[in-house]
Amino acid sequence: MKNKLRVSILGVNGYTGFELVRMLSSHSDVELKHLAVRQEPLPKISDLFPALRGICDLRCSALNIPDIAAESDILFSALPHTVSMSYIPECLSVNPGLKIIDLSADYRLENAAVYEAAYAAKHADAGRLSEFVYGLPEHHRARIAEAQLVANPGCFPTGIQLALMPALKHQLIDVKSIIIDSKTGVSGGGRQPRAAFHFPEINENMHAYKVAEHQHQPEIEQELSRMAEETVETVFVPHLIPVTRGILNTIYVKLKENSAEENLRNIYAEFYDKERFLRILPAGETPRISAVNYSNFCDVAMKLSGQTLILMSAIDNLIKGAAGQAIQNMNIMAALPETRGLLNQEQ
Amino acid sequence: MKNKLRVSILGVNGYTGFELVRMLSSHSDVELKHLAVRQEPLPKISDLFPALRGICDLRCSALNIPDIAAESDILFSALPHTVSMSYIPECLSVNPGLKIIDLSADYRLENAAVYEAAYAAKHADAGRLSEFVYGLPEHHRARIAEAQLVANPGCFPTGIQLALMPALKHQLIDVKSIIIDSKTGVSGGGRQPRAAFHFPEINENMHAYKVAEHQHQPEIEQELSRMAEETVETVFVPHLIPVTRGILNTIYVKLKENSAEENLRNIYAEFYDKERFLRILPAGETPRISAVNYSNFCDVAMKLSGQTLILMSAIDNLIKGAAGQAIQNMNIMAALPETRGLLNQEQ
Amino acid sequence: MKNKLRVSILGVNGYTGFELVRMLSSHSDVELKHLAVRQEPLPKISDLFPALRGICDLRCSALNIPDIAAESDILFSALPHTVSMSYIPECLSVNPGLKIIDLSADYRLENAAVYEAAYAAKHADAGRLSEFVYGLPEHHRARIAEAQLVANPGCFPTGIQLALMPALKHQLIDVKSIIIDSKTGVSGGGRQPRAAFHFPEINENMHAYKVAEHQHQPEIEQELSRMAEETVETVFVPHLIPVTRGILNTIYVKLKENSAEENLRNIYAEFYDKERFLRILPAGETPRISAVNYSNFCDVAMKLSGQTLILMSAIDNLIKGAAGQAIQNMNIMAALPETRGLLNQEQ
Amino acid sequence: MKNKLRVSILGVNGYTGFELVRMLSSHSDVELKHLAVRQEPLPKISDLFPALRGICDLRCSALNIPDIAAESDILFSALPHTVSMSYIPECLSVNPGLKIIDLSADYRLENAAVYEAAYAAKHADAGRLSEFVYGLPEHHRARIAEAQLVANPGCFPTGIQLALMPALKHQLIDVKSIIIDSKTGVSGGGRQPRAAFHFPEINENMHAYKVAEHQHQPEIEQELSRMAEETVETVFVPHLIPVTRGILNTIYVKLKENSAEENLRNIYAEFYDKERFLRILPAGETPRISAVNYSNFCDVAMKLSGQTLILMSAIDNLIKGAAGQAIQNMNIMAALPETRGLLNQEQ
Repeated sequence: MKNKLRVSILGVNGYTGFELVRMLSSHSDVELKHLAVRQEPLPKISDLFPALRGICDLRCSALNIPDIAAESDILFSALPHTVSMSYIPECLSVNPGLKIIDLSADYRLENAAVYEAAYAAKHADAGRLSEFVYGLPEHHRARIAEAQLVANPGCFPTGIQLALMPALKHQLIDVKSIIIDSKTGVSGGGRQPRAAFHFPEINENMHAYKVAEHQHQPEIEQELSRMAEETVETVFVPHLIPVTRGILNTIYVKLKENSAEENLRNIYAEFYDKERFLRILPAGETPRISAVNYSNFCDVAMKLSGQTLILMSAIDNLIKGAAGQAIQNMNIMAALPETRGLLNQEQ
Repeated sequence: MKNKLRVSILGVNGYTGFELVRMLSSHSDVELKHLAVRQEPLPKISDLFPALRGICDLRCSALNIPDIAAESDILFSALPHTVSMSYIPECLSVNPGLKIIDLSADYRLENAAVYEAAYAAKHADAGRLSEFVYGLPEHHRARIAEAQLVANPGCFPTGIQLALMPALKHQLIDVKSIIIDSKTGVSGGGRQPRAAFHFPEINENMHAYKVAEHQHQPEIEQELSRMAEETVETVFVPHLIPVTRGILNTIYVKLKENSAEENLRNIYAEFYDKERFLRILPAGETPRISAVNYSNFCDVAMKLSGQTLILMSAIDNLIKGAAGQAIQNMNIMAALPETRGLLNQEQ
Repeated sequence: MKNKLRVSILGVNGYTGFELVRMLSSHSDVELKHLAVRQEPLPKISDLFPALRGICDLRCSALNIPDIAAESDILFSALPHTVSMSYIPECLSVNPGLKIIDLSADYRLENAAVYEAAYAAKHADAGRLSEFVYGLPEHHRARIAEAQLVANPGCFPTGIQLALMPALKHQLIDVKSIIIDSKTGVSGGGRQPRAAFHFPEINENMHAYKVAEHQHQPEIEQELSRMAEETVETVFVPHLIPVTRGILNTIYVKLKENSAEENLRNIYAEFYDKERFLRILPAGETPRISAVNYSNFCDVAMKLSGQTLILMSAIDNLIKGAAGQAIQNMNIMAALPETRGLLNQEQ
Repeated sequence: MKNKLRVSILGVNGYTGFELVRMLSSHSDVELKHLAVRQEPLPKISDLFPALRGICDLRCSALNIPDIAAESDILFSALPHTVSMSYIPECLSVNPGLKIIDLSADYRLENAAVYEAAYAAKHADAGRLSEFVYGLPEHHRARIAEAQLVANPGCFPTGIQLALMPALKHQLIDVKSIIIDSKTGVSGGGRQPRAAFHFPEINENMHAYKVAEHQHQPEIEQELSRMAEETVETVFVPHLIPVTRGILNTIYVKLKENSAEENLRNIYAEFYDKERFLRILPAGETPRISAVNYSNFCDVAMKLSGQTLILMSAIDNLIKGAAGQAIQNMNIMAALPETRGLLNQEQ
């Protein structure tokens, strides 16, 4: 009988932690070892999330890094940004070979100064930034397969990159012209109650926020620039929508040269032909979050209007935008089938 | 030209305060004097509630009771329970003739011990309980017209009493048998962010809470007992529903004697014949919150099933269940037309 | 290599059909054979439900009963009531040994006259009513295991029966006193657009409907009476709530004899001790649909108020209330582990 | 005593008709004369809209144009597009001086061929197009004051024009560069049930539709071109959001010359200084539909990102986007205060 991966999670008490536990509970190669929280007395995970009763009733662990790091093969950090980087160095000091997938923003940006500007905090572990591989499998799969340390992408950056990657790799568009209008559900803002996320303030409402000032913009531009192999500039406007989960991106770019919409759709279909979690929609359809929610899929569609190409993508912010993509990265790092635990049927 | 009533509000920063300001801004006999908050620096009311921009842009006042009480004819307290009773004595000491409508629970219960059990707090002004008139106009209109001090009813108690009053006054039902299943929108829980009211926790969810332990139950039973002139006992189960506003009550009672549904409906229609804000629905219709929201109406319907009479009522918890009813009380206390500021057309 | 069950579905174009396909796609013992619709030209199932793209892209079949019945081991009928009974006789005539699980209401009631009164339609196959076993596994598991024909329970009846079964089997309550206040999401009303289910009519709204006249009431009373071994009478009031999925039942019954709440909870816990999909909540908790949605679980809680016992249950109307329970029945009929395809981890 | 305007409405059974009746019921200069529907038997308006019980209980009229036109001073047509133009000629033939405000799209476009392409229907009254004034008061107030016939703007075009007018009139932006990303509530799609607006299809969902193909785009471009006095081209992408009412527009334009954001905001504030229903938000705030819903206000904000100016506007699609603006036009046409019936306090 094959040995299972011993998997632990730091900071399991948010929505991302919940999704990790829910999905990993049915992953046939995983043994959940430590579900760590900063909370006393230590609850069962199903006390924190009643939906898990009868599915996973493990008692949570304290954030006791020596035990956790020593007894794990793979570690997910679902701690908030700025907190994650204060625990990861100790994990690696205890267990230097530990594979880590960090779901916070702490190791996504290659430049510490950019991080510090975006997150208004000093980087506590800047020396290790270059050791982390950016965990968008569709872009960096080969490097992820070799990686010990992976920085899991942000929710907005994931859907935006997947919508733009074929166009950038094929150098089809003007990289100074990218306008990104994103709409997100509320779970992306975390589980902590705040006035802005109080039910009566969100329900029957919608609005833009952090207009052209969102902390994900540097991450978006860093990775789009890698794809384009030149500096990409974006105008990024996120909006808050009264749904719990799901991100819809509508992206406006200028084509460098005229092209037929069908031709562009074929380029996209071919580019993503082998990708199990990318679905290019047929002409006339648009992505809807109801079709991707509770799944690791990203749906992409396009429409040409004059020389403006309108790209649209939808993901579940908690799955492909967080926990699902983290598990996809784990599967790649552990040389398991990439869809394991993520798709009903493996292929 | 007639003098306007100088009206002030204590604790204007919650949803009830907002509705008071919104409605009083269009009341032709009212001059808004002080909108008092505990917040520094003092904002404009339209900073707190952007919907009021261009409608009411008054600068808020501090909770400076001597000024407020001296410069007002009518005072609404929209302070939270336990806080309201700590300001009202000073108001009356400064201005002994000041008319006060308290929207908190502090003066609704005639028995301080019952209050203290329900609200887990010592009553700070128990001696004045007997001076307050319970402000349900349909029940106590004559006393309200004479009152200086009015305790505005709770949101659940309002819709429940209005559904039961004709049956109790006519002694049609067994008063030990009353089962009340209530469903409320989230604004009833106030504007303070809390984990329970975080958007992702409410959206696509519903559940019962404080089952047979809600603090409104003593108020309900006190007033139903007054109507019945004997001790009424209830089983009261509130539920939280993913809407911002509106309360729907479904009430199950046993008839003392068999009766035809149409006969009962006629008794109700006749009982409320003169009431401008009560609407008895025709056979086959049920109250829906969409028909009463943003209005001071209470819709009531009934259905007979064997000897069980099913009574249903719907109100807007912020209007008939709070601010609207408070203005209705003000109109009565000031000998103004009862619908002024509450109905499009006065009659 | 083990042979898979050849499974077909009649009427796959509604929400129940979607859930059946979604869940059966990951069931390791199932081969989906025919997904039959009345629609031309025949779409792919993923054209009807874009969420299924990349999960199940089968071309639908016409409702060609000879082929379907001949090529299937198990047949689910997700046709509407009155339609289902017009196809099932032909299925059995073509393939007399075919195992059928009917998700419509057509074979749930043992008395055709009761059916005809509740559904306002002549029963077209009354002679076969006695051959169908009522498919509530927690009540009729042994008979389901032997059955060829199973009538899958309605969504309201499922959650209501599971809340009441231990109390009725233990003869704890007065069976003439049962008041059932149910709240349902909108998907229970089907996928066909109707004025009553138009988004602006449901959103920010709630109301009772078919008060004490719902067509599920006879089914509820038939099965509760079997449990009690005497005639049970109920007052049943369903309410429509602005959520897509989930049913919450609040049930009020009189205890025959005084008892402690903890004692009653223990009776329930023991009664359901072996049941994998029943969860008795600890004291102080109430069922919430967010904890059961997208699962086959039924959560049950209770609270005692005087001699009134308040029972609460929550299910996902499309899973435990329809497709999930149907698969649970299939597993039992096929001697497979009961949780297969329904729980992340089998036990 | 002053004579009231006799006002009638054609096609009162949709959401716009409801809002017209609700608001006109409290308009002190209006007598509602005929509320016409195509429905037999003729219901009371409060049978169609239970919220109107006790507010307006008029019996509806048949679409008997001779009576309606003869007995009215002002006529609102809330009939659907293509239907409205089939009744309006007869109205004018019966009563040549009748003032008409058409809320359909039938008379908004000056070029019949453009109409026919956008609405896929032959124009039945093309000869009268030039007699209609486009009813955006902030742009065409003087002409509306003189007009007998007014075409009330569409909901998307209203908020979009109000966001762009100052920039276009001041020639600040490149008119070939306008990208419009709009988000609308569902009531904009009308009251007719359709699969696309079925509650479970909208709830917890969002998506773009009619991408760069919406029938409002020609109206938007026609009016923006008038403002700019040159041909404006847009990319217009509407999205459907799970709210009942409210439109949010996010518009991306290129500045012709660099400018400071504060400078631009001042230009806007000055431009709209006298406008009672326009609110320019302070720096750092964004429009939210909750602040404009149930009002005739349009909130506008801006943010500069490099040389891209991001303009945002919010309106209630049923009020400023339909019924409220129609009443504003009526007030102007009848030389009444423009805010009458639309604002709590007139100024």
